[in-house]
Amino acid sequence: MNEFELIAKLTRSLPTNDTVLAGAGDDCALLDLGAPDQLFLFKTDAVVEGIHFTKDTPPEQVGHKAIARCLSDIAAMAGTPTAALVTIGLPKAFDADFIAAVYKGMGATAKKFGVAIVGGETTTNPERIFISIALLGTVRRGKQVLRSGAKTGDVIFVTGELGGSIAGKHLEFTPRLAEAQWLAEHFKVHAMIDLSDGLAGDLRHILKASGVGAELLKSAIPVSRSAKLEARKSSGAKPAALAALTDGEDFELLFTVSGKDAVRLLDAWKKQFPELKLSCIGKIVAGDSLMIRDKTGAHKFNATGYEHFS
Amino acid sequence: MNEFELIAKLTRSLPTNDTVLAGAGDDCALLDLGAPDQLFLFKTDAVVEGIHFTKDTPPEQVGHKAIARCLSDIAAMAGTPTAALVTIGLPKAFDADFIAAVYKGMGATAKKFGVAIVGGETTTNPERIFISIALLGTVRRGKQVLRSGAKTGDVIFVTGELGGSIAGKHLEFTPRLAEAQWLAEHFKVHAMIDLSDGLAGDLRHILKASGVGAELLKSAIPVSRSAKLEARKSSGAKPAALAALTDGEDFELLFTVSGKDAVRLLDAWKKQFPELKLSCIGKIVAGDSLMIRDKTGAHKFNATGYEHFS
Repeated sequence: MNEFELIAKLTRSLPTNDTVLAGAGDDCALLDLGAPDQLFLFKTDAVVEGIHFTKDTPPEQVGHKAIARCLSDIAAMAGTPTAALVTIGLPKAFDADFIAAVYKGMGATAKKFGVAIVGGETTTNPERIFISIALLGTVRRGKQVLRSGAKTGDVIFVTGELGGSIAGKHLEFTPRLAEAQWLAEHFKVHAMIDLSDGLAGDLRHILKASGVGAELLKSAIPVSRSAKLEARKSSGAKPAALAALTDGEDFELLFTVSGKDAVRLLDAWKKQFPELKLSCIGKIVAGDSLMIRDKTGAHKFNATGYEHFS
Repeated sequence: MNEFELIAKLTRSLPTNDTVLAGAGDDCALLDLGAPDQLFLFKTDAVVEGIHFTKDTPPEQVGHKAIARCLSDIAAMAGTPTAALVTIGLPKAFDADFIAAVYKGMGATAKKFGVAIVGGETTTNPERIFISIALLGTVRRGKQVLRSGAKTGDVIFVTGELGGSIAGKHLEFTPRLAEAQWLAEHFKVHAMIDLSDGLAGDLRHILKASGVGAELLKSAIPVSRSAKLEARKSSGAKPAALAALTDGEDFELLFTVSGKDAVRLLDAWKKQFPELKLSCIGKIVAGDSLMIRDKTGAHKFNATGYEHFS
């Protein structure tokens, strides 16, 4: 059992109470704290030196990424972020300029999205910088979108272009807060998630939570320029379409709506967000499989599914 | 500038918004999120292997301490804790039994105080276990107690006995949630803090936030048995009264009420919490100094104040 599996197992037996509408297993925890019009979203995330960034990463981007990862999770529930706390572990011999620039980046992104940074905790982590962000947000009662509402016949949409995030987007992405709030306000969004593990992995989270399957049209998946450039670098490189399906940290929105809403949504989106591509990439089907359709037919996508992408 | 000073400086220029009633600088952030009867408390804290615990610390106590530190901060605002998130950084070669026991301890303490653990994040921290807890709580509007309300003429109270926490209490302490809620319900508590940095250090936080001074009666400070035992170990050991003033991690409540309420409070406390000592240790005075009165007179207490405690 690796650390992620262990913690997932341990988390299942932790205590709950009657404020919890959704706990571990969605993008954020969803809490009913007795406010008449609002529910509360609660999320934490961490970035660690040597894992998520290096000493060579521009520190403003480290700060941006630390908070924007949480913001993206608030977006995935169609929420509005409110306040953040920053826990930072630092080696004794820290670079004060680097840390100041991390906070500058964090503060700039927080300000851009109306988030107050209301304190935190400083501690020692002798070997490397460890930054954990806790974020509190709100969502209007009834407007929250979970992972579990996808229905057979739904159309699957994704924002932006996917794959190759490691070339730079993973440090510079824009959390899709405005887009998600607009979606929830104007359409009945059945299920939504932000893309952190890659399209295939995150779609599987929706499928599992909703008890459904999906069929994606390979040619409809929006592939980023970075993924295409990377694929051309060598004959052994990951094919671009596979990168779009499996690369992590795209931080785009993946969501489903009823098939009858699809055309109206595409039209309205183009007017509202002309700069951001919205792609209809497939549909929700019965079963529990993720299928990819290409010109040779529909193929089950799994860890051994590489041959269809060469 | 050390890391704590740096982060305190950086935090001052971070963004705020109109939900923030108190940010960095109190025990918890205090937020007004539009609920008619309630305000929200938001707190984060961390424990790190090799800093706050070792491989030899009983892991259930590590879990207890991780969450109880945050609970103690909620208590210091007279709040009720609701939901927690756990971010954990683990080395690749982690001890699964140790981690499972940490979660068991954390879960048991959360359950005891009605707190739901609603998820979190797992990441890699190659050299040591890093646990960050984010805690969300509520407090009835008007019942919150800040650090900044102490007034000249107030009487200073402290719960329990102080000093020598390192002998064991720092891993086993009870956050004083019930006591703090009862206090705020039945008395006008002017200022409150939980003792994490030591009586003198934490009282200074109240003095600074309130713009006042204090005079403590040395003989009234409740000294723990552990502090007394430690003081007897060698001629060079820290005197017990000094340990009670300066040792950290007591996690007791330090608070002030109007002088006219002091006797009524002591009487009511004895009936309500007969098992937990409450001591009246001094008074709030004009100025900004912390004075300690002993049989030779009143002495300013500062880093060079050791001679009065030998």
